[in-house]
Amino acid sequence: MNDGPLQHLIRTLSTLPGLGNRSARRIALHLLNKRDTLMRPLAQTLERAADEIKECHVCGNLDSHDPCGICQDARRDQSKICVVSQVSDLWAIERTGAYRGQYHVLGGLLSALDGIGPDDLNIAGLKTRAQSEQVQEIILALAATVDGQSTAHYISDTLAGTSVEITHLAHGVPVGGELDYLDDGTITTALKSRKSA
Amino acid sequence: MNDGPLQHLIRTLSTLPGLGNRSARRIALHLLNKRDTLMRPLAQTLERAADEIKECHVCGNLDSHDPCGICQDARRDQSKICVVSQVSDLWAIERTGAYRGQYHVLGGLLSALDGIGPDDLNIAGLKTRAQSEQVQEIILALAATVDGQSTAHYISDTLAGTSVEITHLAHGVPVGGELDYLDDGTITTALKSRKSA
Repeated sequence: MNDGPLQHLIRTLSTLPGLGNRSARRIALHLLNKRDTLMRPLAQTLERAADEIKECHVCGNLDSHDPCGICQDARRDQSKICVVSQVSDLWAIERTGAYRGQYHVLGGLLSALDGIGPDDLNIAGLKTRAQSEQVQEIILALAATVDGQSTAHYISDTLAGTSVEITHLAHGVPVGGELDYLDDGTITTALKSRKSA
Repeated sequence: MNDGPLQHLIRTLSTLPGLGNRSARRIALHLLNKRDTLMRPLAQTLERAADEIKECHVCGNLDSHDPCGICQDARRDQSKICVVSQVSDLWAIERTGAYRGQYHVLGGLLSALDGIGPDDLNIAGLKTRAQSEQVQEIILALAATVDGQSTAHYISDTLAGTSVEITHLAHGVPVGGELDYLDDGTITTALKSRKSA
């Protein structure tokens, strides 16, 4: 292997999340075998996406429009804002089809370890939106981790002066999950939050 | 998620080998967060590699030169040709540093199932090279699968009239491998090919 464009391609691909050296080499060979049908189109798709995809200034979603398609959709419930950490979480909720309100992407979670403070997240924007008259509920759809829960606490404190109702996702047994494989914390929470059948 | 450039990017990424929808979404978000440091450079690297990387007309290796760096390297042993199925196998052998001869990339293996016959592989080129006076040994470094072994047999037959010695890689217990986890065929072969300590 030389240090030319091939080596450079493999090195660049191997920096992508989830890809190591072996998978980068495999992808590079695959691309070189399909230069005109996949490799050049992919290059153009990357350039086009880099140019056209914007961050929505209202909610932080990624879309080719600003405001994004969700913020512009008048059929969606304007009284609910679902707060998520990342755009990928927004996508996960959208895939369920179970939610038809608005979103707010924080751009991360508070983390003492990684030095991420409130000013690094889009919390000010959320506060402004929460003060709008039409917003009645803010759903905190944050990870059930230490960082996720401290972020949820911080947001609850920040919005304490407003009249919105603050809710969070239910904790419990994942649908399809076997008790035997669940951690103690989840089982304890599921027991405490038990509902009548 | 809309059907615009973002969806198109994720769909294109998810066609790469080893990537599914989830990893494609993750990579797309990572790229969009690093547009100028990773996304645009990757697009340019792809274009450049698609333009500059050629298939060596002698051995079938991929390189920015034709003939490739290995074929042009006068310090390498010209009397040995190592026959591999794919460029990735050539890379695997090069990484060991244990071989300093020439290569020949077939571009696949004979496969009745996939309808790959001798004319689909670069076997004619190998025969021509084998007839050169300086070539003394042809090492068949092909997979120990049905397709790999039938390809090896076919090449042995094809080269029967020439004076070159044909060898193949040894079969046996992988270095660091535990007997308990090995299949019966490997253990049988390793027993039959046992060597004095």
